[in-house]
Amino acid sequence: MKANRIIQGTLLLGACALAACGAGAAEGKTGKELPTRPGVGDIVKASKPSDWRALDPDNTLYMAMPWGRVVIELAPTFAPNHVKNIKALVRNHYFDGLAIVRVQDNWVVQWGDPNDENERARKVEGAQKTLKAEFTVPLASDKHFTRMRDVDGYAPQVGHSNGFPVGRDPRTGETWLAHCYGTVAVARDNDADSGGGTGLYAVLGPARHLDRNLTVVGRVISGMPELAALPRGPMPMGFYDKPGMQVPIKSVQVAADLPEAERSNIEVMRTETAAYQSVLDAQRNRGGPFSKYNPAHLDLCAAPIPVRNRP
Amino acid sequence: MKANRIIQGTLLLGACALAACGAGAAEGKTGKELPTRPGVGDIVKASKPSDWRALDPDNTLYMAMPWGRVVIELAPTFAPNHVKNIKALVRNHYFDGLAIVRVQDNWVVQWGDPNDENERARKVEGAQKTLKAEFTVPLASDKHFTRMRDVDGYAPQVGHSNGFPVGRDPRTGETWLAHCYGTVAVARDNDADSGGGTGLYAVLGPARHLDRNLTVVGRVISGMPELAALPRGPMPMGFYDKPGMQVPIKSVQVAADLPEAERSNIEVMRTETAAYQSVLDAQRNRGGPFSKYNPAHLDLCAAPIPVRNRP
Repeated sequence: MKANRIIQGTLLLGACALAACGAGAAEGKTGKELPTRPGVGDIVKASKPSDWRALDPDNTLYMAMPWGRVVIELAPTFAPNHVKNIKALVRNHYFDGLAIVRVQDNWVVQWGDPNDENERARKVEGAQKTLKAEFTVPLASDKHFTRMRDVDGYAPQVGHSNGFPVGRDPRTGETWLAHCYGTVAVARDNDADSGGGTGLYAVLGPARHLDRNLTVVGRVISGMPELAALPRGPMPMGFYDKPGMQVPIKSVQVAADLPEAERSNIEVMRTETAAYQSVLDAQRNRGGPFSKYNPAHLDLCAAPIPVRNRP
Repeated sequence: MKANRIIQGTLLLGACALAACGAGAAEGKTGKELPTRPGVGDIVKASKPSDWRALDPDNTLYMAMPWGRVVIELAPTFAPNHVKNIKALVRNHYFDGLAIVRVQDNWVVQWGDPNDENERARKVEGAQKTLKAEFTVPLASDKHFTRMRDVDGYAPQVGHSNGFPVGRDPRTGETWLAHCYGTVAVARDNDADSGGGTGLYAVLGPARHLDRNLTVVGRVISGMPELAALPRGPMPMGFYDKPGMQVPIKSVQVAADLPEAERSNIEVMRTETAAYQSVLDAQRNRGGPFSKYNPAHLDLCAAPIPVRNRP
């Protein structure tokens, strides 16, 4: 099967460079072929070293799974107390030997203590079991916002902040991390303040209505394909019913606690750069030869955030 | 782990009945608890037999996979020639013994002939290999549209037609099936008219920018969790590189060609009913006790379409 006998992947479609897009570009035209434009791959190739940042080892978690490492970037700007608490849990080995307990199709992968509610529950030591919710933070807390002009149903403004998809409401003066694919957030009971980070989930499907309803702490930077391919649980809401189904977590560590040689060499494109704005435009204004209709729009959660290994 | 020690699933969150929603409902309020409202489960329970329809056996495909049956509803209203052609391919056993050839994370599952481009390619008999694209149809072709008032970035109007998520543009007089989770469409080359249904894909992730760019032929009604949990392929765009990775398709059949006793008893909620509008409002306007913030919005692809076995 030839590579072009397919429908093409998000990161491989034609696109336009920043200068060629925007108000002057043809919107939603069909019929004749769209002009070919640089794609995300071209923009990444043309990027400068300063368009990228390394992950901060003190705010990066490594979750050791049977198939390898899941890398999570934490977002202390948006959930300072929960991030601090999760790092304390990690450093007290709270997660080591726990498990993925739930996979609900098109919804979430969740991990924590399968014995959470019985007498074999793991003790929370050196950290809090629950914390006051951090659903939003003041706009002034966030210094890195770049706005997407695309319309959004869930937030008055959307865009990116330091590598995370975010929503904003200038009227209430709040900003928050959005629930997109790979977003990591804090499971809780009905009480807003009943979570603390002992149970976490990563988003698989459309979940933007959880924005401002759950405390988001970060994002899976590497390892989503394996998490997303785990068997869905047979119980209501995708819980695994037998301990044998639960996927063991060997350990969770803060990257800073590992020798440098054992850390992942991941870099994320800086979302406040012109290069990243070009990436967004490449996805927003599609060029030929594959695309026949230019949507002239990009949903927040459809916007890719390029990640690479340090060259 | 108690059932409430979780983040709750899409179909289980609180919601409001039709009468309690709309302009009068509190929008986007935080702070105090939201009133409890009937959820989708309550609406389904209170529904009448006339709120449901059986699948038309002549436009339903059964794909026999190693783990069981995938049920696909075809949409002849939106792609009459492709649906006719795919049924001809099916009845000529084109797909029997072919395979899932590609799973790209957060993007698509694709099936067809692994030998498509070499001398062992399966012959297309009694059907066409390629057809003129059916990206859109005239508005007048569709008699079942119910509009969602929610804003959408990819289409001037969105809603549902006879169980399918659709977009519409009154200016161009066109309507089309939207690329949401489970949408089934026709793989093609760069040429708009290079597909015919010998290669098909089901959507896993955000793909609305493919609307009006690919011919959509239907929707997976049952079997997405298994398709979505298949291992992602290691090659570019998620192709499987070894024949052993490819997941075999035992057969594809038109439901009408099976004895009634062997058909699936699936019913889909009629999307033009008041009951379905209540379902949408239940997802749009969230009630307590779990939700703390009512998004007062529902994305087209986040709108569930209830399916059940005939009671």
